[in-house]
Amino acid sequence: MSWVSKGFLWISLCSFSFVLAIIIYVIFYFWMIPPTFYRMPMFFDFSSPYPVAVVSLPWKKFRYMNQLDGSLHLCFRESPRNMHIGMLKFTLEIWDNNDTIVYSRFRPTVLRYKDDLETKMETLTLFVFSLFGWTKRQQCQDLILLEYKETSDGFLRRCKDDLTVKVWINKADVEVYQSELLLKTRLRGIRHNMKHYKWTFSWICITSIWFWLFSVLFGCTLYLIG
Amino acid sequence: MSWVSKGFLWISLCSFSFVLAIIIYVIFYFWMIPPTFYRMPMFFDFSSPYPVAVVSLPWKKFRYMNQLDGSLHLCFRESPRNMHIGMLKFTLEIWDNNDTIVYSRFRPTVLRYKDDLETKMETLTLFVFSLFGWTKRQQCQDLILLEYKETSDGFLRRCKDDLTVKVWINKADVEVYQSELLLKTRLRGIRHNMKHYKWTFSWICITSIWFWLFSVLFGCTLYLIG
Amino acid sequence: MSWVSKGFLWISLCSFSFVLAIIIYVIFYFWMIPPTFYRMPMFFDFSSPYPVAVVSLPWKKFRYMNQLDGSLHLCFRESPRNMHIGMLKFTLEIWDNNDTIVYSRFRPTVLRYKDDLETKMETLTLFVFSLFGWTKRQQCQDLILLEYKETSDGFLRRCKDDLTVKVWINKADVEVYQSELLLKTRLRGIRHNMKHYKWTFSWICITSIWFWLFSVLFGCTLYLIG
Repeated sequence: MSWVSKGFLWISLCSFSFVLAIIIYVIFYFWMIPPTFYRMPMFFDFSSPYPVAVVSLPWKKFRYMNQLDGSLHLCFRESPRNMHIGMLKFTLEIWDNNDTIVYSRFRPTVLRYKDDLETKMETLTLFVFSLFGWTKRQQCQDLILLEYKETSDGFLRRCKDDLTVKVWINKADVEVYQSELLLKTRLRGIRHNMKHYKWTFSWICITSIWFWLFSVLFGCTLYLIG
Repeated sequence: MSWVSKGFLWISLCSFSFVLAIIIYVIFYFWMIPPTFYRMPMFFDFSSPYPVAVVSLPWKKFRYMNQLDGSLHLCFRESPRNMHIGMLKFTLEIWDNNDTIVYSRFRPTVLRYKDDLETKMETLTLFVFSLFGWTKRQQCQDLILLEYKETSDGFLRRCKDDLTVKVWINKADVEVYQSELLLKTRLRGIRHNMKHYKWTFSWICITSIWFWLFSVLFGCTLYLIG
Repeated sequence: MSWVSKGFLWISLCSFSFVLAIIIYVIFYFWMIPPTFYRMPMFFDFSSPYPVAVVSLPWKKFRYMNQLDGSLHLCFRESPRNMHIGMLKFTLEIWDNNDTIVYSRFRPTVLRYKDDLETKMETLTLFVFSLFGWTKRQQCQDLILLEYKETSDGFLRRCKDDLTVKVWINKADVEVYQSELLLKTRLRGIRHNMKHYKWTFSWICITSIWFWLFSVLFGCTLYLIG
């Protein structure tokens, strides 16, 4: 073989094994890393004196998780009743399967006050949009009820059962358009490193797979063409 | 026979059996696949403290069904009483024939708030339409009370009796222009495939019916014309 | 007789027997088919806490009937009391002669909401008409309280006695200008076919009566003129 065909063979093997290594790594990555962000709608039972919303957090979902971070996204109705209801208290509790509370935090909040004139001027300004149903009079808030630093000591690693998240409101008169629990989780062990130091990890892995693949393919080729 | 008449015979048999195969498949399809969408008007009994509407779901209807998905379509009257009634709670219960609850979900909802100025401006804008009765002051909502993912494990397959759907409201003062339960069902087994992979399935079936018909017709023709 | 007079005789006999056949069939039709649409004014007794209106449905009227379909036509007074009365419930009950309920359905309803400004503008717009008494402020509704599909299994065929229709309202404060019960009935057996397949049936009957009449008349004429 001439040096041209040798060089061509070398380059093609090189690039082929590089592409293959990237594909293998991407498949491996998405197989290893479960989704770490969840949106869960919270449906409060406003017929009880302390409205409560319950969502379950099955073990299957947080199997590889270490820590939780989450906030409650609430859209309050901008009605006079809500405006004058005063301080609200949102309590998040995480319950075990054995009916014990493993985590509990509360956050106080209140709606931003708007006096009568401001409301009227806002109505006049936004009238065209609200006529077609594009806007509605609401105030959205994000209450951070779960923090990494408060759940840092291997909070989820010790749990081997399903968990239940309960959120309480202290006043039943409050009017809420919609509420969602946004959960972010931090993985544990090698998965955390794979996700957090994404570029470093992927560079190391892809390079090693590439070299291994190239050596195997090159050896096979040499053996075949004699 | 000349090759012209032979070709003509071949083409006419071919097209005739193709059209016949399509007709046979269409008849077969509509015989196999029952309707999967139902609109059921809900009549709430507002004379009781917890208004309830009941519709029956006979076994005959969901015989070939696997899962249910449904929403309650409600049109609220935009009256001051409704506007200030606060949070409403709609509970859907599916009752067995043996008076046991097999499914139960609730959803909270509230009317979109409009202050006095907005209402008046809307009245002025839409006056001509409301004078002739083309619009009425209402707010329509869709409450998703049955979800595929919550009824996924062969929810309807295990039931062998008639079911009853009950919807409760927690406040009797609410004013509702009209309410409907919109039910979508997912078929099971071969019917689900026939409906879901419509084009693939029909292509395979029509082709096989076509070939079978053509061979039968062609054989008969050859036998008859000797 | 010349062929001219023969032809004239033939044509005149033919047309005479045709007209006679039509007249006979029309008389027969209206003798067979009783009226199937009834308007019954309902007079509610508003002095009782649950206003009720009673109409009797004598056996003579539904002798040949199979099913019932009916709606309650109500014209509400557009007064503030009616506007704020909330949800109304109209219950229709069909009572046997033995004081047992054979059918019972209810429908909730509510008046269309109009706010103060809309009412005022409507008054101004329609003032000339209302001054001369041509219009009155009312809201008319049709409540479907009897349906064919709910009374399909030979509902009236099994009854051999007089029936009584009672309509209840759950609130005595409601103000109603007028109310009517509109009943449509479906006949049974041969009468249903005569009414439903009117043209087919009449064509067959008229043709056969015509031929019979013509042959009788022609035979008589031949015998008379010798």
